[in-house]
Amino acid sequence: MSDRGVAAYAVLREVRPLSQASARAVADVLRGTGWGVATRAVLEHLLRTGPSTVPAVAREFGVSRQSIQVLVDAAVADGLLELTDNPQHRRSRLVDATDGARRTFEHLHRQELANLARVTADLDPGDLARCAATLAALTERVKRLQTPDHTTEEP
Amino acid sequence: MSDRGVAAYAVLREVRPLSQASARAVADVLRGTGWGVATRAVLEHLLRTGPSTVPAVAREFGVSRQSIQVLVDAAVADGLLELTDNPQHRRSRLVDATDGARRTFEHLHRQELANLARVTADLDPGDLARCAATLAALTERVKRLQTPDHTTEEP
Repeated sequence: MSDRGVAAYAVLREVRPLSQASARAVADVLRGTGWGVATRAVLEHLLRTGPSTVPAVAREFGVSRQSIQVLVDAAVADGLLELTDNPQHRRSRLVDATDGARRTFEHLHRQELANLARVTADLDPGDLARCAATLAALTERVKRLQTPDHTTEEP
Repeated sequence: MSDRGVAAYAVLREVRPLSQASARAVADVLRGTGWGVATRAVLEHLLRTGPSTVPAVAREFGVSRQSIQVLVDAAVADGLLELTDNPQHRRSRLVDATDGARRTFEHLHRQELANLARVTADLDPGDLARCAATLAALTERVKRLQTPDHTTEEP
């Protein structure tokens, strides 16, 4: 067995525990705000990439269109998201974060970054940056393993 | 905002896409075996750590006891897992992989490692190993962000 396959698999094995720990830490920061982890993730995505449609957000997160529609409907009712007409597709409106949601996100995210900086005081920022770059490269390559008919399914 | 907090967050942002891509690649290898991704994950955990109880497996994966019980019951019926008496706890039996499941796992895992080695041919094994080590260190530190009453909840 090649060392490289084993080394790549060692990275994959670390991903689930970190993902879970991260989701819990995010949930802690959100406590009392009324925002859920999934709503926060969709808001962050929209703030980074700009307005998008429900099907496009569902593809991005690898989940069903219906689950994103339910989340968007609730967030629109809560004043976090707003819908605007889509010049490119009359029947699929664009979803975007409201100004209020953007301000709340920025406030929460500053708190998240400060918390992370505090607990990682003994880690080297360069190691973290190289790790992020390796993860991005590995993700791109692991996606090549997927059979084409599998790419839009639930993980 | 500190560079370190931003660098740590950049790692966290890479984790979800890799986790999804990895789950899909694992599902592809499992196709036709009758094994699900969750069953494979529990089998791998038991093969690495030895026999365990349903509550301990549920804690390890951060999911409900009930969901692991359902999975274990089905895997016992399929001959993948077996239950043995627990010398330390009369009412919580030990779950372990059967010899047949172990052989199938090893066969599937060799295929996974070979697939990974093939698509990561241009990546440096040393970079991958350092990435795995950084992820482990980061996970440990992100866990410190959790409030104590939160650690056994669903992520």
